[in-house]
Amino acid sequence: MWENAAMLVNTHEVEIEFGDCDPAGIVFYPNYFRMFDAATARLFEAALGMKKIAWTRRFGIVGIPMVDTSAKFIKPARFGDVVRIESAVQAFRRSSFDVEHRLFNGGELAVEGRETRVWVGKDEADPHRLRSQPIPDEVIAAFSLVGQQVE
Amino acid sequence: MWENAAMLVNTHEVEIEFGDCDPAGIVFYPNYFRMFDAATARLFEAALGMKKIAWTRRFGIVGIPMVDTSAKFIKPARFGDVVRIESAVQAFRRSSFDVEHRLFNGGELAVEGRETRVWVGKDEADPHRLRSQPIPDEVIAAFSLVGQQVE
Amino acid sequence: MWENAAMLVNTHEVEIEFGDCDPAGIVFYPNYFRMFDAATARLFEAALGMKKIAWTRRFGIVGIPMVDTSAKFIKPARFGDVVRIESAVQAFRRSSFDVEHRLFNGGELAVEGRETRVWVGKDEADPHRLRSQPIPDEVIAAFSLVGQQVE
Amino acid sequence: MWENAAMLVNTHEVEIEFGDCDPAGIVFYPNYFRMFDAATARLFEAALGMKKIAWTRRFGIVGIPMVDTSAKFIKPARFGDVVRIESAVQAFRRSSFDVEHRLFNGGELAVEGRETRVWVGKDEADPHRLRSQPIPDEVIAAFSLVGQQVE
Repeated sequence: MWENAAMLVNTHEVEIEFGDCDPAGIVFYPNYFRMFDAATARLFEAALGMKKIAWTRRFGIVGIPMVDTSAKFIKPARFGDVVRIESAVQAFRRSSFDVEHRLFNGGELAVEGRETRVWVGKDEADPHRLRSQPIPDEVIAAFSLVGQQVE
Repeated sequence: MWENAAMLVNTHEVEIEFGDCDPAGIVFYPNYFRMFDAATARLFEAALGMKKIAWTRRFGIVGIPMVDTSAKFIKPARFGDVVRIESAVQAFRRSSFDVEHRLFNGGELAVEGRETRVWVGKDEADPHRLRSQPIPDEVIAAFSLVGQQVE
Repeated sequence: MWENAAMLVNTHEVEIEFGDCDPAGIVFYPNYFRMFDAATARLFEAALGMKKIAWTRRFGIVGIPMVDTSAKFIKPARFGDVVRIESAVQAFRRSSFDVEHRLFNGGELAVEGRETRVWVGKDEADPHRLRSQPIPDEVIAAFSLVGQQVE
Repeated sequence: MWENAAMLVNTHEVEIEFGDCDPAGIVFYPNYFRMFDAATARLFEAALGMKKIAWTRRFGIVGIPMVDTSAKFIKPARFGDVVRIESAVQAFRRSSFDVEHRLFNGGELAVEGRETRVWVGKDEADPHRLRSQPIPDEVIAAFSLVGQQVE
């Protein structure tokens, strides 16, 4: 059950490739983090209606670097499996936010991922430095199903 | 400060390659999990005095799959940096255990990783199935500095 | 122009992820080999009508390991690009075969790949050893558009 | 036998990690290209006496992108193997050059790699464009054992 039912959930499918798997024949777990990083990019693309390169330019930021991430591995996935990843923002704070990913294999929850990222731009006083910035209300609104239903 | 000062700490160095880094010029974070997986293999090799292929055979197990892992990213690392990874088991339970990794870049803590793994062998009743098994006392003793100092 | 117009060409699309790219902002070239390995798997799946795990079992082989591969990099691809990969077998020999891949980005040829693989099973005399085996006529026929049009 | 005995050969060792290997239990071949890319970086570091970030700045270039690469896979390598990679420039041309890599496992030649790269800087007329540039004599001399012995 998603903690925050009013938030946009994006779903995308990934086919597990031979090279994603290790000598045990299952997905080498660091590759799930690659999948989740891509899933977050897809989630933002779905919410903001444009590719990351466009919305980072639009909002004048450098990116959304990861500061903390975790994953639980419940069931394995193997070469040829087509897994479904559901991704949603769980919380927006001033300049950071949490994303949750649920990866399903054959309809069963196989991996859960959580991540905390920061909204980061260039420091106005020193453009060679990065600093966190407030997440624009427009961005937060784009992830809210409530707001979108009202419109 | 390591939580458990009586446990073996293994250190190894990794040179960051161009291909470990992303368009932001820093290590793509899933690659830290690759480094930590290798660091756990080196820790067990140091404790047990043999490569993983040898000790899995010696103790009759299939492997030590990951069930839960997390990482905090404190400072970035870049192409050409030589990072130092310190790894130690923090707790052994009946059939699972926790490992902690600390990755230093230029002497400063850059990434912290934690993992919980399970000691897994084949089910005696059904060799096609895997099941967790008790971690042998001999294995646990091999990670204890106290035990080794007594001998 | 494909050298052998009578052979099945399989097309699939890949979206370039952030983590596929290097500090120069373009796809780190070893990742093209990952894409081509997956593209060969998709080509065989299209020709044989089943996943690799099924057709290796059906034909009693272990796999189709790579013995020689090359790639030419003509134009770069970047995060967010959706590239199209066209793959075809160029020649079947007794127990080896050549595959060619063409990767297009925005309609332009960006990367060309070639590979030679071997049809490998277990040695009947010593099941711990692998040896190349004749590629079944049925497999070769499945890649021939001529044969399929006749039927 | 190296084709050009007057050229610097750089050797470095790599321990094969679990995550480098595929479900067949051997190194997933795209990872050899990662190793060779790193090996070329080490070769240039050995010849020029500084890290890539320093020599690209020193010579005012952007990098040495790959235009063509190939590899032959002769023997497999497995988790825990420590392989030795020997790398040398085989030919310098005006603005491109060829590198050859030989990867040995247990003393036997296991993989051969070849690559052609270009010496690339920013176009003076349009700094947003890249263009190939003449390789400085000083760079070529740094790879020549003959020149170094004369000094």
